[in-house]
Amino acid sequence: MSIDQLQMKIRKMKNPTMVGIDPILERIPEALRREAFAAHGETLRGAAEAYRTFSCGILDALNGLVPAVKIQTGCFQALGHDGMAAMEEVTAYAREKGYYVLLDTMRGDIDVTAQALAASCFGQIQVGSQTYTPFASDGVIINAYLGSDGIKPFTQYCRQGKNVFILARTSNKSAREIQDMISGDRIVHQVIMDLAMRWSVDLYGKSGYSEIGVAVAGTQPQLLKSLRAKYDRLFFLVPGYGAQGANGRDVQYAFDKAGHGAVVAAGRSILYAYEKFGGDGADYQARAVKAAEMMRNNILTYVTVL
Amino acid sequence: MSIDQLQMKIRKMKNPTMVGIDPILERIPEALRREAFAAHGETLRGAAEAYRTFSCGILDALNGLVPAVKIQTGCFQALGHDGMAAMEEVTAYAREKGYYVLLDTMRGDIDVTAQALAASCFGQIQVGSQTYTPFASDGVIINAYLGSDGIKPFTQYCRQGKNVFILARTSNKSAREIQDMISGDRIVHQVIMDLAMRWSVDLYGKSGYSEIGVAVAGTQPQLLKSLRAKYDRLFFLVPGYGAQGANGRDVQYAFDKAGHGAVVAAGRSILYAYEKFGGDGADYQARAVKAAEMMRNNILTYVTVL
Repeated sequence: MSIDQLQMKIRKMKNPTMVGIDPILERIPEALRREAFAAHGETLRGAAEAYRTFSCGILDALNGLVPAVKIQTGCFQALGHDGMAAMEEVTAYAREKGYYVLLDTMRGDIDVTAQALAASCFGQIQVGSQTYTPFASDGVIINAYLGSDGIKPFTQYCRQGKNVFILARTSNKSAREIQDMISGDRIVHQVIMDLAMRWSVDLYGKSGYSEIGVAVAGTQPQLLKSLRAKYDRLFFLVPGYGAQGANGRDVQYAFDKAGHGAVVAAGRSILYAYEKFGGDGADYQARAVKAAEMMRNNILTYVTVL
Repeated sequence: MSIDQLQMKIRKMKNPTMVGIDPILERIPEALRREAFAAHGETLRGAAEAYRTFSCGILDALNGLVPAVKIQTGCFQALGHDGMAAMEEVTAYAREKGYYVLLDTMRGDIDVTAQALAASCFGQIQVGSQTYTPFASDGVIINAYLGSDGIKPFTQYCRQGKNVFILARTSNKSAREIQDMISGDRIVHQVIMDLAMRWSVDLYGKSGYSEIGVAVAGTQPQLLKSLRAKYDRLFFLVPGYGAQGANGRDVQYAFDKAGHGAVVAAGRSILYAYEKFGGDGADYQARAVKAAEMMRNNILTYVTVL
């Protein structure tokens, strides 16, 4: 999906949010865990199966309500190859359901490694006469500390309806240590955004936004506001909503006047919404739907998506 | 293995090098590929099997000659879960053989994800009453763009004989775009190194070096020299040797007066040394040994490891 297609999906659903699929074993409803362990034992395979059924359950529940999902690769990878097998299934399932699927890789590779990883998500891995795309998806999140060399292998697919989101200003507390360093009249995270603009050259869609987006924290409304004004052609992926403290009032500044140009991500506050109600989690899907609706409504109080 | 143990291993073998296990399918000797495809077809599983046999063949060949290996996680990950299964086997095999094993994750995660990944390498993933460590290893390479939040989950294992190497100044061409930005009297990559010092507090070994090391390019001898002088308690992992152009004369500046405090990494120039001789690669192990010996000898021309 191109950035235009993502924007169109958001406009149709009137929902500028993205749900993070961040499975954490001990927070998955017990019945799902029990079932997975019954089939595969208390093994990494069993845990991966719980991740798969829970993630697919969330995808089923939010289908038609939420336009996009962000797969947290590290959560799956921590379970080893069984976790990665589950992630491949979850990713494919999300695409089947019609979601825009973003892989939150958090990696920053270069050279042949970056080329291989980009091919595994966006292109084709050649094996003899056969080709495979184990992580077929619409976009990836990349760490650009290594500069252009780490970005080019991915952006070469941008003209084929693939997106790259680059970490600019993250929402964690220590983000400022490196990302807010001031260099002359620029700040490190803005240099990243300047590079994103430079790499965008001919990658603008009809919406006016580049296929190369940036991740910018929702927890700092003033910063969001000034970055939105300055980088009016970069699509913003906005983390920090919910568990990390930002709300609709804060993230409204990520959007342009038409309510376009941004998508707000939340994971745990949706996935584990059931925990607040003290039950056994049998209702996790309904609770996730409610939480996702509340998030959407909260944002739409401040933002009108035309 | 602690940083002291890595240093001792290097001193015993008189070889301050680390070989990067960077499998690339089309560069693996054809006989190995054919055999893997015969067993598993031209599938990702077949490709992963070729990665496994080639990587283990290299580990067999260099055993006793090279003290440490660096597993390039992205190469394996590009093959999906089959690649990750191969990587787990290669990692375990390298540790069995007694190598210091560094996982080149190139990731920078935070929060629960970073905790889970750190547990998958250094600790234990809890599944019901069972525990697992799918990527058990001695060290990891981390991208610190997200600051302390991304480092702490890993450094908590440093007192248990685990190391963290942080990307400071990488050896690729575009590294300067972000890493060389000047802020007042400091430079971004030096701020990373200052943070590494701050995070080190009580993590110094008997060798005087911290369990937290840094990756610093071997391609810039003057920079290496000044960083070595300034950061005399950080162990340097030095990429850029061989395929990327650095040689013994360049990388000598990474070492202290006793020839300690650094390890030079090379991957492709060792793994695919056989290609230069025009054969079918049946001799890849002997060629890798020769290339590793040449690299060691080249460095020892300039550096005396006491």
